[in-house]
Amino acid sequence: MLANIGVTGLAVMGANLARNFARSGYTVAIHNRSVEKTDALLEAHGDEGSFVRTESLEQLVSSLEKPRRVLIMVKAGAPVDSVIDQLVPLLDEGDIVIDAGNSHFDDTRRREASLAEKGLHFVGVGVSGGEEGALLGPSIMPGGSRESYDALGPMLEKISAKYDGEPCCRWVGTDGAGHFVKMVHNGIEYADMQVIGEAFDLLRHAAGIEPCEQAAIFEEWNRTELSSYLIEITAEVLAQVDSKTGKPLVDVIVDSAGQKGTGRWTVISALELGSPVSGIAESVFARGLSSQRDQRAVAQGVLAAGTEDLGQLPADFVEDVRQALFASKLVSYAQGLDMLSSAAGHYNWDLKLDEIASLWRAGCIIRARLLDEIMKAYDGGEAPKNLLFAPTFSRVIADAVPAWRRVVSTAVRLGIPVPVFASSLSYYDGLRRDRLPAALTQGLRDYFGAHTYQRVGIEGTFHTLWSGDKTEIEAVDTH
Amino acid sequence: MLANIGVTGLAVMGANLARNFARSGYTVAIHNRSVEKTDALLEAHGDEGSFVRTESLEQLVSSLEKPRRVLIMVKAGAPVDSVIDQLVPLLDEGDIVIDAGNSHFDDTRRREASLAEKGLHFVGVGVSGGEEGALLGPSIMPGGSRESYDALGPMLEKISAKYDGEPCCRWVGTDGAGHFVKMVHNGIEYADMQVIGEAFDLLRHAAGIEPCEQAAIFEEWNRTELSSYLIEITAEVLAQVDSKTGKPLVDVIVDSAGQKGTGRWTVISALELGSPVSGIAESVFARGLSSQRDQRAVAQGVLAAGTEDLGQLPADFVEDVRQALFASKLVSYAQGLDMLSSAAGHYNWDLKLDEIASLWRAGCIIRARLLDEIMKAYDGGEAPKNLLFAPTFSRVIADAVPAWRRVVSTAVRLGIPVPVFASSLSYYDGLRRDRLPAALTQGLRDYFGAHTYQRVGIEGTFHTLWSGDKTEIEAVDTH
Repeated sequence: MLANIGVTGLAVMGANLARNFARSGYTVAIHNRSVEKTDALLEAHGDEGSFVRTESLEQLVSSLEKPRRVLIMVKAGAPVDSVIDQLVPLLDEGDIVIDAGNSHFDDTRRREASLAEKGLHFVGVGVSGGEEGALLGPSIMPGGSRESYDALGPMLEKISAKYDGEPCCRWVGTDGAGHFVKMVHNGIEYADMQVIGEAFDLLRHAAGIEPCEQAAIFEEWNRTELSSYLIEITAEVLAQVDSKTGKPLVDVIVDSAGQKGTGRWTVISALELGSPVSGIAESVFARGLSSQRDQRAVAQGVLAAGTEDLGQLPADFVEDVRQALFASKLVSYAQGLDMLSSAAGHYNWDLKLDEIASLWRAGCIIRARLLDEIMKAYDGGEAPKNLLFAPTFSRVIADAVPAWRRVVSTAVRLGIPVPVFASSLSYYDGLRRDRLPAALTQGLRDYFGAHTYQRVGIEGTFHTLWSGDKTEIEAVDTH
Repeated sequence: MLANIGVTGLAVMGANLARNFARSGYTVAIHNRSVEKTDALLEAHGDEGSFVRTESLEQLVSSLEKPRRVLIMVKAGAPVDSVIDQLVPLLDEGDIVIDAGNSHFDDTRRREASLAEKGLHFVGVGVSGGEEGALLGPSIMPGGSRESYDALGPMLEKISAKYDGEPCCRWVGTDGAGHFVKMVHNGIEYADMQVIGEAFDLLRHAAGIEPCEQAAIFEEWNRTELSSYLIEITAEVLAQVDSKTGKPLVDVIVDSAGQKGTGRWTVISALELGSPVSGIAESVFARGLSSQRDQRAVAQGVLAAGTEDLGQLPADFVEDVRQALFASKLVSYAQGLDMLSSAAGHYNWDLKLDEIASLWRAGCIIRARLLDEIMKAYDGGEAPKNLLFAPTFSRVIADAVPAWRRVVSTAVRLGIPVPVFASSLSYYDGLRRDRLPAALTQGLRDYFGAHTYQRVGIEGTFHTLWSGDKTEIEAVDTH
């Protein structure tokens, strides 16, 4: 009997995806560079479904029904190219190569173009949900040709997470679109975690609430519109007591977080698109700063606090923080989705924001009640130009904004860093502002670099003769 | 008579550099793709010094003394490669090709390596000061081999700006170091302009001070430690009255600023280095947001202000804003210099921060009294790990920080966007903080992705069995 799909790369993510396929009723051919992992999987989980053991890529390929589906789950970068190079000569026209790892979407675009020339489909698939998600049902964001989805999509939908019975898997767009959408998901995840961290820090250091008491607060918040996987597990992490010291676990974990990978990629890509994802960027930089331990150690003895004694905190401070957290979170989603809109234009992808939001409702790390609302905001009628303009969200944020201002102002006066709370509020205020000081920037650039400027209400490009008689001339913009 | 240097590409920057060399006593061979520009330069400025007219790159090269020095000033990107490809067969071992345009340092690294293989020197030179600087004395940041500087440096020093008689030109490091340092200069310039814009916006919309009155304030500020070219020309731009409408010019300029180019490159490069340049990033994003005019138009009718009536502003609000501006500016310099330190390690450059600061003291757009202080802070003794730790600056900032907090808090409550003021303050507070919520981030990442964590005071890498019995195990970090 021929297998329905082949999986090569049986580290935990690959192994769990293979098991998920088998448990969903598919026959799965499995392969790993060292056969020990293949046998270990079979020994531990061989009874979960129908597996075909293979010892080489040749065997893997020859064990598959056509069109062949070969899923690669190896480390992003050169290893993916290496496996592709070995696979290509073994495949026939119409076969499908699937990269389910965390590849950069530019690599996926390159690989897709290269395999398309050979008559093969290359499908970059974003998979979110960690190891457990891979096994029990992840959120799946497949790119590649529309045609390849006909042969592959139903299988991916079957193994995916379900939200109200709907699979969290849908074709998102051609070539690198799947990996791009997954990357932005991760960027939003960075911001999500950072705003939770800022709320935690404020409750701790402004309001003096200990982690174990905060666990109960986050549990309660998880029953509000903040309801989400990350809020849920925050409650669990904060409740955890370290067995070695009896202290809250969060107090004995080194407070340095790495910033390499998809969060960084998201911001770089946004910069290339000209999309202002300031909240996501601040969350990446917050991790970078946390890792500069040698500087932080010096700073504590050298940098003055200059804080104020506020006396009383504002009444309902905890509720204020909750609202500030929700508003800041909404801004990061707005920024992430705006980036997707820019990318759709730039890369010629027909990204549907309602469908993308729907994929994130279950299985993935940022799954949240909010995503169902976001889906609805983009579903039917004219899409809002910015998530914050959807009536549901402009109303919610209108209610939250006074609290948001109180919280940021309090943090600033107490010296508690709130990079994403503050940045998101600046974005919000910048967006809703009639006139921005960018006009002055343009004046300065015209002064020192003859960069020219546009005028309000008059067509054309202008330059003031700053070092001459200071009259204005109409200019051909050559910059 | 053989020329000392050749210049190809006679648009305004190239023409002005050529004239600067000639006016400094050098014989300059000049070339342009279309000979009309060459003749135009000679007709208008041929009497300023000794020029050699050439009609082809062959003529240009054969008119030069050895080792030949050929300076390219064409549009960054493919045009530079094209000129290099035409030049290389005409040159001999030891000749020097100079790219004085705004090339990306990665391109410069690639080109330097390629020409070095052929026995040629390739020198990427950062030049700042705009068109006027190019003619009268720019700040010059040359990279390339140390050896090439012996033959080229004295000429560059002669045409450069002078600060107290010292040339603002010095070899900064191998291969792409010159263009890298120029890129970071531009990133800082973005932040410099944005913090000026935020101050302007606050004085206007919080304190109700009109642009023409502000011109006097900025003039006064220019006599304080803020003294700098950008503050000086801000006063001039704000004083400018539009002849068409009688309004302040700054009120009739379209308030959208582009964000492509070196500012964006700076942030991308910082992300790759893991260096937290949040203030520079916010200034790039502020430009991006200013350009989203269609979204801004909608936002004004839809997004609630939720601001407070503050009644009185804090006393001395104008002075508070000045101090907030200076503190925020210091943070962007700290971030830019920190990024240079990271780059020095990563790219193996022996960057000397005191020398780099010294180059920026005259000729360039960010020239400022402050840079002389920065130079001194890194000059001699053990360099501070962060600019803010230098005693001069930790004292200044200690004085400024209460005002800084008042200003950000006021802006937040009034709904005036201050992305860089606020972000810089978050950076400052993050840096000086004993414990950051990155510990919670690490706990969450361990929960959903088994990413593991480090513990305070205990060697090793740990993982809590979150979905098991919640005990902690020692783990091999495979992520």
